[in-house]
Amino acid sequence: MWNSRKVGILGGGQLGRMLVESCNRLNIQANVLDAENSPAKLISFHDGHVTGSFKEREAVRQLAKSCDVMTAEIEHVDTYALEEVASEVQVEPSWQAIRTIQNKFNQKEHLRQYGIPMADHRELIKNTPEELAEVGEQLGYPMMLKSKTMAYDGRGNFRVNSKEDIPEALEALKDRPLYAEKWAYFKMELAVMVIKTKDEVLSYPTVETVQEDSICKLVYAPARNVSDKINEEAQALARKAVAAFEGKGAFGVEMFLLEDNSLMLCEIASRIHNSGHYTIEGCGLSQFDSHIRAIMDLPIPAKSLEIRQPSIMLNIIGGSAPDTHLKAAEAALSIPNAAIHLYSKGAAKPGRKMGHITVTAATMHEAETIIQPLIDVVDNIRAQRTDIKTKAQPSGPSKPAPQVAVVMGSDSDLKTLVPGLKLLENYFGIEPAVEITSAHRTPDYMAEYAAEAASRGIKVIIAAAGGAAHLPGMAAAHTALPVIGVPVKGSSLDGVDSLYSIVQMPRGVPVATVGINNSINAALLAARILGSFDPAIQRKVEAYAEEARAENMEKKGTKMRELGWEKYFEQM
Amino acid sequence: MWNSRKVGILGGGQLGRMLVESCNRLNIQANVLDAENSPAKLISFHDGHVTGSFKEREAVRQLAKSCDVMTAEIEHVDTYALEEVASEVQVEPSWQAIRTIQNKFNQKEHLRQYGIPMADHRELIKNTPEELAEVGEQLGYPMMLKSKTMAYDGRGNFRVNSKEDIPEALEALKDRPLYAEKWAYFKMELAVMVIKTKDEVLSYPTVETVQEDSICKLVYAPARNVSDKINEEAQALARKAVAAFEGKGAFGVEMFLLEDNSLMLCEIASRIHNSGHYTIEGCGLSQFDSHIRAIMDLPIPAKSLEIRQPSIMLNIIGGSAPDTHLKAAEAALSIPNAAIHLYSKGAAKPGRKMGHITVTAATMHEAETIIQPLIDVVDNIRAQRTDIKTKAQPSGPSKPAPQVAVVMGSDSDLKTLVPGLKLLENYFGIEPAVEITSAHRTPDYMAEYAAEAASRGIKVIIAAAGGAAHLPGMAAAHTALPVIGVPVKGSSLDGVDSLYSIVQMPRGVPVATVGINNSINAALLAARILGSFDPAIQRKVEAYAEEARAENMEKKGTKMRELGWEKYFEQM
Repeated sequence: MWNSRKVGILGGGQLGRMLVESCNRLNIQANVLDAENSPAKLISFHDGHVTGSFKEREAVRQLAKSCDVMTAEIEHVDTYALEEVASEVQVEPSWQAIRTIQNKFNQKEHLRQYGIPMADHRELIKNTPEELAEVGEQLGYPMMLKSKTMAYDGRGNFRVNSKEDIPEALEALKDRPLYAEKWAYFKMELAVMVIKTKDEVLSYPTVETVQEDSICKLVYAPARNVSDKINEEAQALARKAVAAFEGKGAFGVEMFLLEDNSLMLCEIASRIHNSGHYTIEGCGLSQFDSHIRAIMDLPIPAKSLEIRQPSIMLNIIGGSAPDTHLKAAEAALSIPNAAIHLYSKGAAKPGRKMGHITVTAATMHEAETIIQPLIDVVDNIRAQRTDIKTKAQPSGPSKPAPQVAVVMGSDSDLKTLVPGLKLLENYFGIEPAVEITSAHRTPDYMAEYAAEAASRGIKVIIAAAGGAAHLPGMAAAHTALPVIGVPVKGSSLDGVDSLYSIVQMPRGVPVATVGINNSINAALLAARILGSFDPAIQRKVEAYAEEARAENMEKKGTKMRELGWEKYFEQM
Repeated sequence: MWNSRKVGILGGGQLGRMLVESCNRLNIQANVLDAENSPAKLISFHDGHVTGSFKEREAVRQLAKSCDVMTAEIEHVDTYALEEVASEVQVEPSWQAIRTIQNKFNQKEHLRQYGIPMADHRELIKNTPEELAEVGEQLGYPMMLKSKTMAYDGRGNFRVNSKEDIPEALEALKDRPLYAEKWAYFKMELAVMVIKTKDEVLSYPTVETVQEDSICKLVYAPARNVSDKINEEAQALARKAVAAFEGKGAFGVEMFLLEDNSLMLCEIASRIHNSGHYTIEGCGLSQFDSHIRAIMDLPIPAKSLEIRQPSIMLNIIGGSAPDTHLKAAEAALSIPNAAIHLYSKGAAKPGRKMGHITVTAATMHEAETIIQPLIDVVDNIRAQRTDIKTKAQPSGPSKPAPQVAVVMGSDSDLKTLVPGLKLLENYFGIEPAVEITSAHRTPDYMAEYAAEAASRGIKVIIAAAGGAAHLPGMAAAHTALPVIGVPVKGSSLDGVDSLYSIVQMPRGVPVATVGINNSINAALLAARILGSFDPAIQRKVEAYAEEARAENMEKKGTKMRELGWEKYFEQM
């Protein structure tokens, strides 16, 4: 039967534990090689586990005998042991892939052959100050001095700011095989989880990672303020890079997004990865589910890798005391839609990954708002640690991308729009993007603005224009979004010219036209459109109508009954 | 620390197992009382478990000694054992609640005091044919003869269709304590999971359950085609019923929705419940998470009980062979966004619950479409069973609730609307609800229709009217939805009367007006509005524009260049 083959896992830390969660739900036996009571073993009771280390060759042999498919939660395994057992057990991904990837210099040399963009780098042979100074001349400062092997979570890296840092850098990384890398000036760190199956290379969407103390702190899925185009380019780059290696399973690909919106590969991990934890709640299949399916040749529907809802993952890191991290988890209990994952690692050391939290919400802005109090708790815990000196990066919810764009052909239309803008912002709390763009004076900019509005998250455009009012119709011709047209009354024809110019669009390009100068109704229409898909806004539209009813019925009506129409009219 | 108290669980079946999953992620030790290798114990490795049955008093005593809070995955426990240990360990919910609930007759007598609507019923004392015949006179036929205790998944129930069935019914349920219940003619079965905490009674949304062979087959979350009002009433009824019992934790409440849309309580389970499995993927906190938090007095944010995405749960039931159910799970591997839960129960008996699948999607219709092939597999497996005779209930995706309503004041407006209706249905695949409702001739129906449109799932209303065209504006006055107005050209004034009547609405009530007679643009505007929130529709809007561009540029433009304008004009 499809789930009767046994999986062997080198390593029983949190990544192994979450792989076991996936195996448990499919009733697949997962045999873990690690110490007794390692996190993965605590949720898997059977007699197939192996006690020992994934670095011991004899233990690897023993695991190989107990399983049908072997995989690893970490790339720092003994690939010579894997090579030896590969003749008797399926090893995924291949030992060759793991061997190349675990040496970061070899990984990059390998990827270079496949045309993957990466920071320029130089190998060090002698590890002397003179050699590194020469490399510094070539790459410029600052540069990164890196250990080729056993480097993770910032360990094995040293930033060389100038020639003067060279002795300290070489001392910090002494006895390690080294290479140096040109500094990458990036505006954002992105990551993509790639799943390599027997006949496909699939990818999860592009996420944004925030590092602190060289450890992953936050993951935003999908990446914030990144266009669909970049999201797709990053996925394509990640798939291309992973396709360069043999074997099946999950690969974590980290990238830099540079100032010019080009992408540069940072590094690949040949395994499930911290940047993919959000997939447990965020996607139809988690990275752990997909990894197990990939190595067992079970189906993975591509749709199951899409993001179900915007998600933010926050790591829970060991604090100053062995149980400080539990305070962060305790705070998370009160955060709406926060899924808590503690790893059963026992007492914490400062800086150790002890768990993670994933918050999901209907919008990224909502997720950011929900998780902020928890980020504050985590930052406070970090501030109490004595083993680190730097301050926490200030963080707060990013401004939500505007959902409404308000454009006008000329600033003379602004005064007509003001009542609508005020209503949107003050009553509905909807902050629009406001722009002057004329169909006649800036036709190209107008076209570009309208064409790109949807990909920037805009859901409705309000366009005001007077006279031969072309802006609403031309904007509608350049976008698939609904465009609301506000006819502005000009100096002649009482606004009828504007109204006809906007409402009498040809078949095929609609403009939702409101009354002449009626920006209030344009704003309300935008709110009604958003409200059809956002209950909170729809309730506000209902409240607005109810207030108008009360104003008319109770206030004005009562007053007229009390005063009589004559006095009422006098007071008007 | 908040997670250091130990939980004791009576019963280690699938419900216990899913409770243990929740405990594992919070690093809470769960001590399970059940047989060795019961499903719950297989994912929990520590020395705190107790071997035995939850019906053995000594085993319950032993579990009580090993934990701080005791709970049960089943209501058929020895409540006298719980009463005894309640002095030394916290028992949730209370043994009194479990004792009352496990006897269905007592449960109903208790709930009656709290004014909970239920089917009329009568206790049997002597269990004689004469007594039951007398009850039959009172309740009418058909009626349900029920065992007061140990009744679940249809066992312990017998449908008495007429007086002639009485001997067979009493034989089938002999030696059991009995009561009879009036037959409930319901149109739908609903269920609500209720979470009772130390100071609140919370509820998950109302779901629809479909039973087959007296076992839960499918759960639709939220219930399909049920108004917000009924959804809220069902939750309120469920909370009120659960509030009648002492103790904390999850309670499953099953209800009937009758033909007149009134609700009737069916029964309560004092535990996590099959109808709540969808919460694992469907909500921020699963019923298992919430149960553990409730009994340990940990926070439960109310928002975490909301449904993140429409979800459908399908049970995987044992088939004719011990591993037939694995074929259903295998088919589920290829279903997008299907989360598979197998319970590690080993070889299956026909009809036994072996696992479940939950599918989530952006809309209920999409979820129904995705899961249908799997329902077919499950139905085929059932058809091969020899232990059941009845045919499977035919099932298929229900028609999606329309998102667009098209209303006209008079059927004379229909011909104007036809091009738009055809475009919506044939090009966009959007099937609208189409209605005649006049602001002048049927003002009340028009108001009611508009006011209830949003709660029926409508997102946009298109309204066409001519002359003194009031329908679009009046509809807009009765709804918070966006209303698109189509001015219909009448016999005089060239449609300008209709246009002005629709577009020149007062501030506060907007109508999105399109050109005179331009139902194509109304349809496109509706598609653009939906498309802002549904990428598939937005892509179709883009494709429509691209086709129009190609038609103009390539077909017509090329033809004019080739023929010259004179010949072109001749052929027009």
